[in-house]
Amino acid sequence: MYVILVYDCGERRVAKMLKLCRKYLNWIQNSVFEGEISEVRLKKLLYSAKEFMDESEDSIIIFKGPNHSSLEKEVVGKERCSIDNFL
Amino acid sequence: MYVILVYDCGERRVAKMLKLCRKYLNWIQNSVFEGEISEVRLKKLLYSAKEFMDESEDSIIIFKGPNHSSLEKEVVGKERCSIDNFL
Repeated sequence: MYVILVYDCGERRVAKMLKLCRKYLNWIQNSVFEGEISEVRLKKLLYSAKEFMDESEDSIIIFKGPNHSSLEKEVVGKERCSIDNFL
Repeated sequence: MYVILVYDCGERRVAKMLKLCRKYLNWIQNSVFEGEISEVRLKKLLYSAKEFMDESEDSIIIFKGPNHSSLEKEVVGKERCSIDNFL
């Protein structure tokens, strides 16, 4: 399936969240990831996130679509998609 | 159509971007909006944003789906959807 993941978490946990999400999805903007992922791997990502998240303060929102083509993407301004995902 | 809008812009323009997006969509998380919107109103939103954006530094990404049900949404942790959208 295709997902867009956005997170908003406490300063002390941001680096850990960024590192975790990078293992599963593509970073496209500050706290925003997208990509194809299986249900099992998404569950693993969320299980790992919950291990360090403060669920009373932090938030992850995931939008799931059947596949990449179910969503049209438009970028205005600077495209931040970091190339180090491809190194 | 149904959209998810995420922005990342310079500190001096964040308040203006937040105010603008709130006129058209629902705030759900830091720099993240969602909602039903017509093509015309989305164009108006982006036209207004471009009037103050620094397109060499700022970024808006819009994901468009045919309707609300084209995407499944999952929230982990604190749901930040601010109630003042409904006041």
